Amino acid sequence: MPTISQRGINMPASPIRKLSPLADDAKNKNIKVLHLNIGQPDLPSPQKALNALKHINRTTLEYSPSQGFKSLRDKLVSYYSKYNIELSSDEIMVTCGGSEALLLAFLSCLNPGDEIIMTEPSYANYLGIAQAAGVVVKTVTSTIENSFALPSITEFEKAVTHKTKAILICNPNNPTGYVYSKEELLQLKDIVLKHDLYLIADEVYREFIYNGVEFFSALRIDSLRDNVIVVDSVSKRYSECGIRIGMLLTHNADVRNAVLKFEQSRLSPPLLGQLVAEASIEGTEDYSKQCYDEYKARRDFFISGLNKIEGVYSPMPQGAFYTVVSLPVDDAEAFCRWCLSSFSYKPEGDKSKYDGYTVMFAPASGFYENREIGKKQVRMAYVLCQEDLKIALECLELALKQYNSK
Amino acid sequence: MPTISQRGINMPASPIRKLSPLADDAKNKNIKVLHLNIGQPDLPSPQKALNALKHINRTTLEYSPSQGFKSLRDKLVSYYSKYNIELSSDEIMVTCGGSEALLLAFLSCLNPGDEIIMTEPSYANYLGIAQAAGVVVKTVTSTIENSFALPSITEFEKAVTHKTKAILICNPNNPTGYVYSKEELLQLKDIVLKHDLYLIADEVYREFIYNGVEFFSALRIDSLRDNVIVVDSVSKRYSECGIRIGMLLTHNADVRNAVLKFEQSRLSPPLLGQLVAEASIEGTEDYSKQCYDEYKARRDFFISGLNKIEGVYSPMPQGAFYTVVSLPVDDAEAFCRWCLSSFSYKPEGDKSKYDGYTVMFAPASGFYENREIGKKQVRMAYVLCQEDLKIALECLELALKQYNSK
Repeated sequence: MPTISQRGINMPASPIRKLSPLADDAKNKNIKVLHLNIGQPDLPSPQKALNALKHINRTTLEYSPSQGFKSLRDKLVSYYSKYNIELSSDEIMVTCGGSEALLLAFLSCLNPGDEIIMTEPSYANYLGIAQAAGVVVKTVTSTIENSFALPSITEFEKAVTHKTKAILICNPNNPTGYVYSKEELLQLKDIVLKHDLYLIADEVYREFIYNGVEFFSALRIDSLRDNVIVVDSVSKRYSECGIRIGMLLTHNADVRNAVLKFEQSRLSPPLLGQLVAEASIEGTEDYSKQCYDEYKARRDFFISGLNKIEGVYSPMPQGAFYTVVSLPVDDAEAFCRWCLSSFSYKPEGDKSKYDGYTVMFAPASGFYENREIGKKQVRMAYVLCQEDLKIALECLELALKQYNSK
Repeated sequence: MPTISQRGINMPASPIRKLSPLADDAKNKNIKVLHLNIGQPDLPSPQKALNALKHINRTTLEYSPSQGFKSLRDKLVSYYSKYNIELSSDEIMVTCGGSEALLLAFLSCLNPGDEIIMTEPSYANYLGIAQAAGVVVKTVTSTIENSFALPSITEFEKAVTHKTKAILICNPNNPTGYVYSKEELLQLKDIVLKHDLYLIADEVYREFIYNGVEFFSALRIDSLRDNVIVVDSVSKRYSECGIRIGMLLTHNADVRNAVLKFEQSRLSPPLLGQLVAEASIEGTEDYSKQCYDEYKARRDFFISGLNKIEGVYSPMPQGAFYTVVSLPVDDAEAFCRWCLSSFSYKPEGDKSKYDGYTVMFAPASGFYENREIGKKQVRMAYVLCQEDLKIALECLELALKQYNSK
């Protein structure tokens, strides 16, 4: 029997999904699992997009251009200009979700063995995608005590070696909710120029910034015109995670040429998703405002609720819809497993069909290169309605009590 | 300005799509380009699938399971059993097209630098996907004189080194249309077992075999239970290339475990495509029969037409809807470019809105590791209606005359 590959062995199981089998078991016991583990918004997709889906009149569901439909890319040009990001449609490559955009950026810019610096905790799937591309991850740690602000440039400088080829940031940040200021980005600019690096910026949460600060895209740094690659996606801003439509944006023509060749080798991005995404971009301003208001209200409610629970601490996230939370347990992953396998809670007067509720979080250790640092932390996505978030908070409080008195 | 990666530089441009800009130019000159370059069937998708698309009633277009919906995988179990392929739904991993299935097979089974043996001419995107995965391709040449039959096992044996980890076959074959017999597969079995290799079989054209022989899947070889990985897709059999739904099939649990981790890192396959694919599998037997009859009629018409043109030769393909054709030119790619940039033909009495027609083929050199071998050949996909195939043949005959009298 042939062995599997070393990268298959080393590939980390996603902390976001690896406990899913336990969640399925709980569901089979008629327990409602409140999924705070994954950034899957419960909000509906825009009605305009759902209408477009119902009116797709094609009879042959054929390949689309490898780079994505021009009509979609044209609409995106207008969308980005609202954020003072000036791009032509040629500078937009449509991908199968933000995940593929990141994979193609890695494949096109980095050789196997090249190093990329990212802040940790970092979005767990970055580590997996880096593993797939043979890219070596070096991390600079942001700390919960400092609300996960950008670590000092000295720390980045220390992480640079002769193999460093790129810095990856996520802004607004998944998993921490931190929003990098223009000043922080300009600090990164200096180190990027000094060492002739790529700056890869995942900006999929730009719609969701709650502290009143204007979003500043890495694409706006003129001196980094050939260095910046932005990863984007319609998944979060239109609650369309399932349609798998992302984008890679760059002014660098050499990078685009390489990305296009990788895109041609997989033929085309999803046709149906592109049609839905295209219908989502214009005329959905009211929808976006409603989503924004809802997430902001959830954040205010949820984070204050978390910090009222004894031993629990969360900084106030300024953007996105995640937070990394410190729990009063020694091993947060063991606690997460226990919540799914051995805990349930039925609120007084609950009239639902369920025998009880439990919560699912993503253990934060999987968001760190050094897994020890995040051992007492979990990532929570506040993507449920406030009623469910309230039950989730009650579950967490009760579960901690029971777990710690075992 | 940072340099792009070596793999980005080495990545071959797809011969199927790299001449697309010239085709766009021709279209801008009001010339209808007959696309024989790409296996994009013009046949409609099943009405049942199109109806399902119109009746998607979801309000949140959310992530699906990383491995794909169980309901889809359950339907596939029944589908495969018709071909005497016995699989459980757990042994089916849904992917973003057959392309992703192949990429995940490479990532999970081969280390960077490991070698894979394939027959050439091979489907061009295999070479690109191997490049993306850092896998080294070794080829065994099948020849047009021998109708592209499986080269002798001696040839495979010669290609094996201590780095060989897998053999990849495409059956029925893209680009040649050759169908491997059970006996040929059993010959491969011996070499696979002897060297403890994976046998990766792309079987997406199993519906289209015209010589009356029963399709024999690599998954039916009992002694290769842990060695075989099958790549599949709904793209061709239901004219649904755009929905990007493929499958990776294997009994090997270690491989599936690795594949699942890679799948989790990209979250999920396309939601909408899965819903359409699921509706395509059952109750579409009449549709499949009609497609089969149509492709068979096209093959008979087109191949006999090709062989009537002076200096043109195509073997009779037994399956799929491609053929590799030898042309009376020194450089088939230059000829393909010329057809798009300097040629057009208006049939007598043609009442269409077009000023003329031309043809687009995929230069076969991109389907060979040794590009010299295929220099006088092109791959043609006979996926157009007979009326268009007739004009394509007329274009080819006239274009060759003009080109060779320059």
